[in-house]
Amino acid sequence: MGPIKHKALINVDLGEGFGNWTITSDEDLLPFIDHANIACGFHASDPLIMMETVRSCKQHGVKIGAHPGLPDLQGFGRREMKLSLEELTAITVYQIGALKGFLDREEVPLHHVKPHGMLYGMCCRDYETSMAVFKGIPKDVKVFGLPGTCMEQAAKDLGLEFVAELYADVKYNADASLLIERKKKAWDLAEVRRRVTQQIETCTATAIDGSTCELPVKDHPISICCHSDVPGCLELVKETRAAVDTFNKAYFPNK
Amino acid sequence: MGPIKHKALINVDLGEGFGNWTITSDEDLLPFIDHANIACGFHASDPLIMMETVRSCKQHGVKIGAHPGLPDLQGFGRREMKLSLEELTAITVYQIGALKGFLDREEVPLHHVKPHGMLYGMCCRDYETSMAVFKGIPKDVKVFGLPGTCMEQAAKDLGLEFVAELYADVKYNADASLLIERKKKAWDLAEVRRRVTQQIETCTATAIDGSTCELPVKDHPISICCHSDVPGCLELVKETRAAVDTFNKAYFPNK
Amino acid sequence: MGPIKHKALINVDLGEGFGNWTITSDEDLLPFIDHANIACGFHASDPLIMMETVRSCKQHGVKIGAHPGLPDLQGFGRREMKLSLEELTAITVYQIGALKGFLDREEVPLHHVKPHGMLYGMCCRDYETSMAVFKGIPKDVKVFGLPGTCMEQAAKDLGLEFVAELYADVKYNADASLLIERKKKAWDLAEVRRRVTQQIETCTATAIDGSTCELPVKDHPISICCHSDVPGCLELVKETRAAVDTFNKAYFPNK
Amino acid sequence: MGPIKHKALINVDLGEGFGNWTITSDEDLLPFIDHANIACGFHASDPLIMMETVRSCKQHGVKIGAHPGLPDLQGFGRREMKLSLEELTAITVYQIGALKGFLDREEVPLHHVKPHGMLYGMCCRDYETSMAVFKGIPKDVKVFGLPGTCMEQAAKDLGLEFVAELYADVKYNADASLLIERKKKAWDLAEVRRRVTQQIETCTATAIDGSTCELPVKDHPISICCHSDVPGCLELVKETRAAVDTFNKAYFPNK
Repeated sequence: MGPIKHKALINVDLGEGFGNWTITSDEDLLPFIDHANIACGFHASDPLIMMETVRSCKQHGVKIGAHPGLPDLQGFGRREMKLSLEELTAITVYQIGALKGFLDREEVPLHHVKPHGMLYGMCCRDYETSMAVFKGIPKDVKVFGLPGTCMEQAAKDLGLEFVAELYADVKYNADASLLIERKKKAWDLAEVRRRVTQQIETCTATAIDGSTCELPVKDHPISICCHSDVPGCLELVKETRAAVDTFNKAYFPNK
Repeated sequence: MGPIKHKALINVDLGEGFGNWTITSDEDLLPFIDHANIACGFHASDPLIMMETVRSCKQHGVKIGAHPGLPDLQGFGRREMKLSLEELTAITVYQIGALKGFLDREEVPLHHVKPHGMLYGMCCRDYETSMAVFKGIPKDVKVFGLPGTCMEQAAKDLGLEFVAELYADVKYNADASLLIERKKKAWDLAEVRRRVTQQIETCTATAIDGSTCELPVKDHPISICCHSDVPGCLELVKETRAAVDTFNKAYFPNK
Repeated sequence: MGPIKHKALINVDLGEGFGNWTITSDEDLLPFIDHANIACGFHASDPLIMMETVRSCKQHGVKIGAHPGLPDLQGFGRREMKLSLEELTAITVYQIGALKGFLDREEVPLHHVKPHGMLYGMCCRDYETSMAVFKGIPKDVKVFGLPGTCMEQAAKDLGLEFVAELYADVKYNADASLLIERKKKAWDLAEVRRRVTQQIETCTATAIDGSTCELPVKDHPISICCHSDVPGCLELVKETRAAVDTFNKAYFPNK
Repeated sequence: MGPIKHKALINVDLGEGFGNWTITSDEDLLPFIDHANIACGFHASDPLIMMETVRSCKQHGVKIGAHPGLPDLQGFGRREMKLSLEELTAITVYQIGALKGFLDREEVPLHHVKPHGMLYGMCCRDYETSMAVFKGIPKDVKVFGLPGTCMEQAAKDLGLEFVAELYADVKYNADASLLIERKKKAWDLAEVRRRVTQQIETCTATAIDGSTCELPVKDHPISICCHSDVPGCLELVKETRAAVDTFNKAYFPNK
């Protein structure tokens, strides 16, 4: 299928601690990423963590997105919950607004919104869910989502700019959908390098059944997701950065 | 001391249910009030309630303020908690931002901020607390607070417009401070009428020890607080409205 | 099919407030019921409410059961959540244990366990869920559940005594399953009387489509559920009591 | 003052993760300790973690105590909160009961109760608080607490057996009270060895001002506390174990 049509960029979920608990050192990751998805207090984070994370992103020039999740700290937003459509809109507005409070103080714009975990999965599969969630997003903000799913369609129908995500550290099913796991395991770095390079060079991925699946990224801008709650995430992000830099230098030398 | 120097207006805390629980029928109160203080999900409320409450206020032309509280749903924000100054700022920014998410969608401005319950009491007593909380408030938004306390001083020092509150249904100590109770009782309506009228006509109140205390409202704009979690709150609000309308008609006939 | 084979008894969910929020006056209901299902803090209630509710039940001689729910205060345990089987067992053990703490202090035995709301519905429909939940129940404690469902089978397979529930105030589908609603509406009392009498006199109910469905209560002991969060619940409980007393006097005059 | 009059034993707080968040690997610590204080879901832990932690302790033959805390996950139970005395009793009963649910299933007795964090500090300083908390403890269960404080007095007045704690990794003030910090730092192991050895060999400690303070342990049984949320806690626990084993071998060779 040929390579992706834009520079490859990298997004990571940040601020996913809660109170005294932390998952990784966000500070270490910031030099290697382009986009941060900041947890908004429903599946992870709290006001103090958000305030600090926004400041760190600003210092490193990383673009900030909201990462709203299901209201379930204990399940880290990875347990499916049935909310009404009105509730889905309301929890999205609430979480984006809360993050925007910190951005406004720092005079930093909200760059994008990316639903978290199971909410992301529900948006992929169900158009009504995507519509309900995306109705809570301001019109001038991009949506990060999985290409070829209900997320892409809903973003289009609501006039929101769609950024297609690729995944460095989540396995693909044969139909190019993602296999969401509640707890994550460490990755082999060489495999990460191969996976990322294959995705951006060919717009395909190797699925869990060994088949090759096409990633329908079309002409959308691209952001590659790395998870901060994977053991060894710093190395994973660095490896992804190396793959991305090599690709960008070759294909977009002047940007 | 003479009457207050502005029209008397009325504020009520709204949206103080949580999930399936409700405290009163906010809809019934809206025709009788000027300012709503909307709970932001920390001591009460949730995203769905906030979305609905914002819409109701807009329909009734009631001005909307944020009502941030301590992070304690079980204690309804009425149990003292020791937060760091940074945390106080962060919880204020978060809660105001969350409410503003709903206001932005409805294209309604944020009119004011009033801390809730024990956070209000802590702000009254402690200058550092007031400063930490008020640092979380956007510059173009008014602060509702108790005149003559650290709230007034901190608002002044931060350049925030201060609106002095009078209380229809909270008892005054002899030093004009308030006696905060975790659960509230019904009031005799004639007493409410007398209390409100005395406060706006003379800028004094009768304290719990029977003494008369001066209410140092100076030239500040005035808003009289009625609580929505008092049994019989609708009648209390109507009685306050009647007292206020009588006063406004007599003293500010052309406004 | 003829009448039920045991005295009709009544159970009500109690202690379903949270912090300052209340749903109904439990005290008013206690004289009219036999079994209380006490919320354990996950979908409703808190330690103080549980302590007081246990005391009230003891004073009125009402038998006490645990009413464990999904971990979702905001949704009142009425939003479906996907928990692992291990989690289902763990939340059941936790909640029963917490209630038992209060019972042990009052030297009152734990009489039964009844899952709440959506957890009840999930147990009805899914055998694995019922098994996971019921594995968290001590062997000498009864299970309240819907006859003819996976609850009955799981109780049998685990050797737990099963008490079949009838419903005064929940509508039946044509297959004798229940129609769970997140918020409840008031009932016409004459209809309640007819519904209860029909159920205990004939072991049948009129479903929402107008058809008559058989209630497969077999020889199980019976408890009729009335909900405390229905508007007008006190009158509903009294009406159910009257129907039950009439039946018990006619069919079990010597008990 | 001479050495302590009983064998030195070691207690550690375990199960202090929450959902996907963890603090340390409890499994690694279990071979080196005698007593586990298991978090009960208010300041940390959840039902699944409790179930697993109880099983692990049982496998390692570690005695299990309840570690009830203030209802504040975000603050890890280290922010002071003002609860009523009734609430303090109720939250203690609830948390102990919840843990006991898991112990009963595993047929393991509840060995002791140790209040967590700020609740511990409040119990040390305030007799009424200690009494309210300890009234929630079953009569046949020991209390772990700081000797010479209100905890010791309240345990005595309620007829509860008192175990005096020494601290490997918390600093002492000159009056032998503890300096509670919300987040903890790593310790120098040689210093830990000196601190522990001094405490058990002489019943004294070096306070933060350099003075030597007496630790009024009297004839009480002793348990030395190591914290699992200190960076490098495994090494700290091993070092404490070594100090304790040396002492026990010398002073209690036949036990």
